[in-house]
Amino acid sequence: MADLHLLSPFGFRASGVYAGLKTRQFPDVGLLLNEGPSPTAAAVFTTNKVFAAPIKVGREHMAESGGRLRAVVVNAGNANACTGRQGEKDARRMCQLAAAVAGCEDWEVLPSSTGIIGHLLPMEKVERGIREAGEFLGSSLEHALRFADAILTTDLKRKSAAVELKFGKERVTIAGVCKGSGMIGPNLSPEGPAPSAGATAPGRRTSAKKASRPKRGGHATMLAYLTTDAAAPAGELRKLLAAASDGSFNAVTVDGHTSTNDTAALLASGATARLDTAQRRAAFAAALLEVCQSLAYQIAADGEGATKVVDIRIDNATSDADANAIARAIANSPLVKCAMHGSDPNWGRIVSAAGLAGVPFNPDRCTLRLQGTLVFKDGRPVPFDDAKVSASMNAPEVKILVDCRTGSGTGRCLTCDLSKDYVTINADYHT
Amino acid sequence: MADLHLLSPFGFRASGVYAGLKTRQFPDVGLLLNEGPSPTAAAVFTTNKVFAAPIKVGREHMAESGGRLRAVVVNAGNANACTGRQGEKDARRMCQLAAAVAGCEDWEVLPSSTGIIGHLLPMEKVERGIREAGEFLGSSLEHALRFADAILTTDLKRKSAAVELKFGKERVTIAGVCKGSGMIGPNLSPEGPAPSAGATAPGRRTSAKKASRPKRGGHATMLAYLTTDAAAPAGELRKLLAAASDGSFNAVTVDGHTSTNDTAALLASGATARLDTAQRRAAFAAALLEVCQSLAYQIAADGEGATKVVDIRIDNATSDADANAIARAIANSPLVKCAMHGSDPNWGRIVSAAGLAGVPFNPDRCTLRLQGTLVFKDGRPVPFDDAKVSASMNAPEVKILVDCRTGSGTGRCLTCDLSKDYVTINADYHT
Repeated sequence: MADLHLLSPFGFRASGVYAGLKTRQFPDVGLLLNEGPSPTAAAVFTTNKVFAAPIKVGREHMAESGGRLRAVVVNAGNANACTGRQGEKDARRMCQLAAAVAGCEDWEVLPSSTGIIGHLLPMEKVERGIREAGEFLGSSLEHALRFADAILTTDLKRKSAAVELKFGKERVTIAGVCKGSGMIGPNLSPEGPAPSAGATAPGRRTSAKKASRPKRGGHATMLAYLTTDAAAPAGELRKLLAAASDGSFNAVTVDGHTSTNDTAALLASGATARLDTAQRRAAFAAALLEVCQSLAYQIAADGEGATKVVDIRIDNATSDADANAIARAIANSPLVKCAMHGSDPNWGRIVSAAGLAGVPFNPDRCTLRLQGTLVFKDGRPVPFDDAKVSASMNAPEVKILVDCRTGSGTGRCLTCDLSKDYVTINADYHT
Repeated sequence: MADLHLLSPFGFRASGVYAGLKTRQFPDVGLLLNEGPSPTAAAVFTTNKVFAAPIKVGREHMAESGGRLRAVVVNAGNANACTGRQGEKDARRMCQLAAAVAGCEDWEVLPSSTGIIGHLLPMEKVERGIREAGEFLGSSLEHALRFADAILTTDLKRKSAAVELKFGKERVTIAGVCKGSGMIGPNLSPEGPAPSAGATAPGRRTSAKKASRPKRGGHATMLAYLTTDAAAPAGELRKLLAAASDGSFNAVTVDGHTSTNDTAALLASGATARLDTAQRRAAFAAALLEVCQSLAYQIAADGEGATKVVDIRIDNATSDADANAIARAIANSPLVKCAMHGSDPNWGRIVSAAGLAGVPFNPDRCTLRLQGTLVFKDGRPVPFDDAKVSASMNAPEVKILVDCRTGSGTGRCLTCDLSKDYVTINADYHT
């Protein structure tokens, strides 16, 4: 399915152009149009009390349109956050221009921005960019890539994933692109009931070769756009997106710093099959989770300064919520992240991080495995070969598995290691 | 008052000896005896669900003795955490030996350990150390220094503070020593009602010269021992210590990683004045807070890899608890800490960190000052001279002041910057 991309689902066109917002010549304004027969959508936004103008406008538009979203307009290089009333005007203007391209109402457009906080958008450039993006729309792989590139900031890699489902003779495709590298600790709402759909992430790995990261890091945000040609009412999409986000985007952290601009949107064109049976909805939910988990994995792998992904899984906690809290506490501990960077089987840091999550945790009943090796059990260390486990941790992915043995709750969080490069990216530049 | 030290209050003797637990030849076993006429004490311990054997035994002894503590026995180099039943036996054995020296009951001894997690104490060395420490007890400055040294691990500096009060003709001294450098995010209980006593920290600064940090970082813990020759019942000391801890130790973070071994104890010998009036109690509370805040400041200044202290103050939040939550969210953001390291006036990271604290916060009403310069107001940036503010941040201390203008709650948190040295200390060694 490597040939599938964001525009593989029927009914979508997109583009990405360079409008001069990024310092390097690289797409920074993108348009994504839903031109399907029955366009519906759902979106989840950051829960940060400080949210950018496009988040405010986007929430409004989702409510006003009842989820009838026709277009997404996005810029990178400037977050349009902490920009007051002018910022709000600018976000509305972006929607107006995108609506003119799409031939829809302003409130059928979702705006997004990512980049530096506290600067007004250079609207002349943005306006020209949106108009130009309108002239280069298409459904090819190249168009999908241009849009995917237009949302990147400090990311070193483009992030995309897609899966195909068959419902009888009908094919349904789910695809997505995202961005995120630093200021990554998404907590997207509405908080769905998060029924775990049981799919597993494809687990893509970063290559060893290191690209050069663009300057001006640290305002990275998570943005994700998902497309599908299935047909489903907006209410159904809301449930699906909330559940998939909880199991993916809300379970990845680079630095625990929830951004002002985090957004995930799911757009359905209605060009193919209806999700009209419980079986279809379950299959769709599992496939959507798979796409979102792949995207989340790619965010962790491309975390600022990351050399490896850390995959933290908690089994048999008192509840799923408690398991996720424990996973997140471990993922957000700088001490754990540094130990992972140094391939140090320092399980004491992991167990103590689990204990500070603020939820029930009993070290005397738990077991801890590092890359499959049992290192701690029932409150006591288990002798193991330090050098061997350390060598096994010198890998693109390190698995931490905690079995709490106090209930049946499961949780998971993805993160990356903490390296000197994270400090370089986020300290060694001046505004 | 530079000549005051831990043993200046009447009624105390202490010592510190090298027993071979640390890799470098430096005191690692300490004894502190309260030989006053009416010894009373209070202690607060880590709230981490994973707590070390000495925490378990210490809690028991505080309850059994009703706060009649005669001695503290401490070792550094090994945390005696995650060591199961043998660890508990070892902690009890430490108390037994210290009790033999002090001529008291085992349950009148508070044990503490700090160092690496998951290794059994080398009890032969520890036992010899405690016996030897018993032979070198004294009340001189030298004895105070040896005890202060015996609790250090990755600390580069010895940490101590003291103040003197006069109640009529009577003098009361409050003194303290502490340790802490990494794995610092104390959350000591019992959680007192935390009435802010209004004193300010002396604000000591680190010298520019950098000492070499001992190997094997990352199991640092916070330990603090406070002595006074005032006379007060244990119940009164509990209230005083809880309040002072909330305004100091619980308001400092290096990496937000609450340790398994955090302990703060206040020992009163009863050799001088009684705290028998509300006025005396208030004066004592303010002085105790001053000592604890100085110690907390020294922890931030000596944070692993730290080059500067970051002093975060929140005014006019919806409540004191909310203000403290906001201060802590800012203090624990790696993005903020990296910006501080780079002297980058990146207020967007600070405002967005305030917004993710999970408590009411309205950026449209708040102001933010960096080193006294207004940089953000009412949801919008305020133009300022980047180069000038950046230059002002290139200092041993950076002050962040957020005025929420939504209530009357105040809060504060001290932290340090995040440098590459933090990563070096915590990643570049193997167990």
